[in-house]
Amino acid sequence: MSRVRVHNFSVSLDGFGTGEGQSLEAPFGHAGSRLHEWFFPTRSFHEMQGEPGGSTGIDDAFASNWGPGIGAEIMGRNKFGPQRGPWADENWKGWWGDNPPFHTPVFVLTHHSRPSIEMTGGTTFHFIDASPAEALKVAREATGGLDVRIGGGPATIRQFLAADLIDDMHVAIVPIVLGRGERLWDGLEDLEQRFNVESAGSPSGVTHLTFTRP
Amino acid sequence: MSRVRVHNFSVSLDGFGTGEGQSLEAPFGHAGSRLHEWFFPTRSFHEMQGEPGGSTGIDDAFASNWGPGIGAEIMGRNKFGPQRGPWADENWKGWWGDNPPFHTPVFVLTHHSRPSIEMTGGTTFHFIDASPAEALKVAREATGGLDVRIGGGPATIRQFLAADLIDDMHVAIVPIVLGRGERLWDGLEDLEQRFNVESAGSPSGVTHLTFTRP
Repeated sequence: MSRVRVHNFSVSLDGFGTGEGQSLEAPFGHAGSRLHEWFFPTRSFHEMQGEPGGSTGIDDAFASNWGPGIGAEIMGRNKFGPQRGPWADENWKGWWGDNPPFHTPVFVLTHHSRPSIEMTGGTTFHFIDASPAEALKVAREATGGLDVRIGGGPATIRQFLAADLIDDMHVAIVPIVLGRGERLWDGLEDLEQRFNVESAGSPSGVTHLTFTRP
Repeated sequence: MSRVRVHNFSVSLDGFGTGEGQSLEAPFGHAGSRLHEWFFPTRSFHEMQGEPGGSTGIDDAFASNWGPGIGAEIMGRNKFGPQRGPWADENWKGWWGDNPPFHTPVFVLTHHSRPSIEMTGGTTFHFIDASPAEALKVAREATGGLDVRIGGGPATIRQFLAADLIDDMHVAIVPIVLGRGERLWDGLEDLEQRFNVESAGSPSGVTHLTFTRP
């Protein structure tokens, strides 16, 4: 059965999945790269960048689950880019360069339609105006039975959690206090009652939580 | 050198150190006992209750640091009781019965003065109207060189953190989403820059974080 999964989603101690003030230069706003410092040294991140090496400890044990078995990603528009409203510049093709790390169809949730973009390496961005359930239906049809990853940002994951559409979720709690930005947990009171939750610390200071639908 | 310490302070994933709606029947409001379920099975909690037995695993390894070396506690008034404003009922002597687990002087921060209360077992409650720095000075004089514990609630710990008066802090992140209540981390942006932070998971699902002043 095709599952709906979240991987490597980092939040601060105060629950922010991204900082305040996203811009072209700052995809995560004032958080900068602080939410993801644990991820950069891993072998999984190196592989995404087409680089050799990287760590293979606890952080990578979690990070490495991001790719296998995934047939499509759904992401919010703010993960795709800093623009808001109608697309003023259709030259924008995401933050990831010509060969994005997804290598699958990626469905970008937006109220503003736009032609699909086929990238190098198997990634195609599709732009759809859909509810979480509708988007999931469309994405599943594209996976050939594989799993669907919900890629973020916080609002997108929150909406899928609120609709009870997530089967597996890996959240990395990063020991920083961001103070402002976009919270992951808002509106999800008693979320834990729908999941088995396990926790593992890492020498990097990050805590890996897994949420598994029983 | 006498240190200022926080132990066993539990917060939800969304950062709440207590729920909404404290009352005589519900010291932690709608959170009930959910923030402390990890603590009850430990040997340390059993000892506080004067009972034998209890677990001695990871959770107890952290919980057991609560007592040793402490010469006084400072707590906020809302930890002491559910009353607000002037003391209408001076018969209230805290939630803990005749023999509270503190066994030291305890300084309760309140704008409303009240005579001290000497309990069985070495605990004496003193009521003081003081800033965090002033309260710490008073508490230190009572410890004979031992450490001072900041006992909570969230607002009290937050005020001591904001004033940069905490040396060591143990926070237990409990994998529940409370949704409402009183947050620990508010107003503490970049707190981590003042501490070394380490993390350990536990089979109970709780994550133990230690904040240590470098």
